[in-house]
Amino acid sequence: MALRTRLTDMFGIRHPIVLAPMDPAAGGALAAAVSAAGGLGMIGGGYGNREILEAEFAKAGNQRVGCGFITWSMARDPSLLDLALARRPAALMLSFSDPAPFAETVRAAGVPLICQVHNLDHARRALDVGASVIVAQGTDAGGHGLTTRGTLTLVPSVVDLVARERPEILVLAAGGIADGRGIAAALMLGADGVLIGTRFWATQEALIHPAAKARVVAATGDETVRTSVYDIVRNRAWPPEYTGRLMRNRFIETWHGREEELRSLVGAERERVEAADRRGDYEVSNVTVGEAIGLVRDLPPAGELVERLAVEAEVRLASVARHTLAT
Amino acid sequence: MALRTRLTDMFGIRHPIVLAPMDPAAGGALAAAVSAAGGLGMIGGGYGNREILEAEFAKAGNQRVGCGFITWSMARDPSLLDLALARRPAALMLSFSDPAPFAETVRAAGVPLICQVHNLDHARRALDVGASVIVAQGTDAGGHGLTTRGTLTLVPSVVDLVARERPEILVLAAGGIADGRGIAAALMLGADGVLIGTRFWATQEALIHPAAKARVVAATGDETVRTSVYDIVRNRAWPPEYTGRLMRNRFIETWHGREEELRSLVGAERERVEAADRRGDYEVSNVTVGEAIGLVRDLPPAGELVERLAVEAEVRLASVARHTLAT
Repeated sequence: MALRTRLTDMFGIRHPIVLAPMDPAAGGALAAAVSAAGGLGMIGGGYGNREILEAEFAKAGNQRVGCGFITWSMARDPSLLDLALARRPAALMLSFSDPAPFAETVRAAGVPLICQVHNLDHARRALDVGASVIVAQGTDAGGHGLTTRGTLTLVPSVVDLVARERPEILVLAAGGIADGRGIAAALMLGADGVLIGTRFWATQEALIHPAAKARVVAATGDETVRTSVYDIVRNRAWPPEYTGRLMRNRFIETWHGREEELRSLVGAERERVEAADRRGDYEVSNVTVGEAIGLVRDLPPAGELVERLAVEAEVRLASVARHTLAT
Repeated sequence: MALRTRLTDMFGIRHPIVLAPMDPAAGGALAAAVSAAGGLGMIGGGYGNREILEAEFAKAGNQRVGCGFITWSMARDPSLLDLALARRPAALMLSFSDPAPFAETVRAAGVPLICQVHNLDHARRALDVGASVIVAQGTDAGGHGLTTRGTLTLVPSVVDLVARERPEILVLAAGGIADGRGIAAALMLGADGVLIGTRFWATQEALIHPAAKARVVAATGDETVRTSVYDIVRNRAWPPEYTGRLMRNRFIETWHGREEELRSLVGAERERVEAADRRGDYEVSNVTVGEAIGLVRDLPPAGELVERLAVEAEVRLASVARHTLAT
């Protein structure tokens, strides 16, 4: 048994599962492990650092992987995009802010363009610039995004828009999907596959401190919050509409809602956060994950996880259809 | 074909679809229409008004319907609960704040207790007080709720908790479900059925001004927001953690984020809102609906809608399973 969708056909992969290009979790080793297991691995280009990006592509070896950028950050040095495209990635994903300035470069390189969207205006823009795949990410997701839409309503809304205007374009669901139930639900909503972040963040290969991973395995999904306090303290110039979903901790309890005061003390607090990064103190440093942490209870190797997710989704689809459809 | 689940078995209904007891939309006529079509209709007891509650039960006639209360508000006059229980409702639903003071009264009346929950602490409390059914409502929903959890992650988290502690208790998904895709997705997440508000709000029978319904039919799902400005102006004593999801309008644009100033001017603004209620001006009065409005494009009779939702869900379950499960 296997799940076959337009996504598996398009990329020649075995499972309709794409790794979210999380910065810094999704390095070359994680991306390669996901691809080797039949999903599509994506390296997180993040805020953009040439040496790190080259090193992570090297770690992916000969596995076919894609790469994703935080668009507004990459825009400060578009040679990072050229670097990624020179590696002939399986796909190039642009998230957060307008993809238009870079879409033609990606398509001219013959690389499928994936655009992540958070509302219908974003989705229309992605269609306009020629995306091959749209990722509809709800606010349930970890990391940056908008608060406007939950995954459960955004996905069918984007599916309907795409069906009306460009039915050949694929739609992936993202945000809150961490097991076979979520994958099966996404397919019911009309998605061609899923983009998964948090669940892969909690794997052996993810470039995350073990103390942070341990917190996530022990947490419930009630323990995250959207905030901008780490963007302030780390001096990340995010457009103000984007907040980040993170695990609640003492730093957020202290500063969330006191952003102006934090700005006035940012130097000292930045030193404190950077020291916490080094010693792995996640009451002060950030754990960037989504609501799906409540469904995460172990730290498997990523390849094993891909297989598990696929089997869970297949079994779920078959058994729910069999048991609830009375004749 | 039909969808058979533990919910349809428990209540002897044909479809695993429960009407959310919305105040004021879900009156006796809407509840009766949903039950007559094979779902489970629920009258919205709302903030609690004896005359209205009696009248709406009367309008439901001989149809078997349930009733739901805003618990903290009903608690100011628990005789409302006695009134509802005297009508021998199919179920009694308690939402928002602790159900404990009333759970024993409901169970002593031999009426199944449904508790709506917004996080895992609520779910544990619902199990403790003896709920027969737990409704897991994500922040995608219309009306009041918490911002903590999206439906897509809350439902499987509650399902897992219930499976560990009280597997005989049923779980319904609520928030953002408005078509067969959403129902099929909820079943994949492990729910025994769905509680649907916004989609039934937009039906012929809903006790809502036609001008408000017309706005919803024309809107996208990006046009809602969570706010407390109408609770302030209408003097509703909601516990502060509960905000309401509503359609954006001029009143919200004016006052959201300026709540203290609104409190200082509340008399004049209340008159303005009440005048707008009377003339059906929804730039000033509120339209209380969820993100699912983007999936609402018509105003059918509720019975026709129940049948449509059930068929859509059945077809979706069968076809996705058939087309994606390659052998």
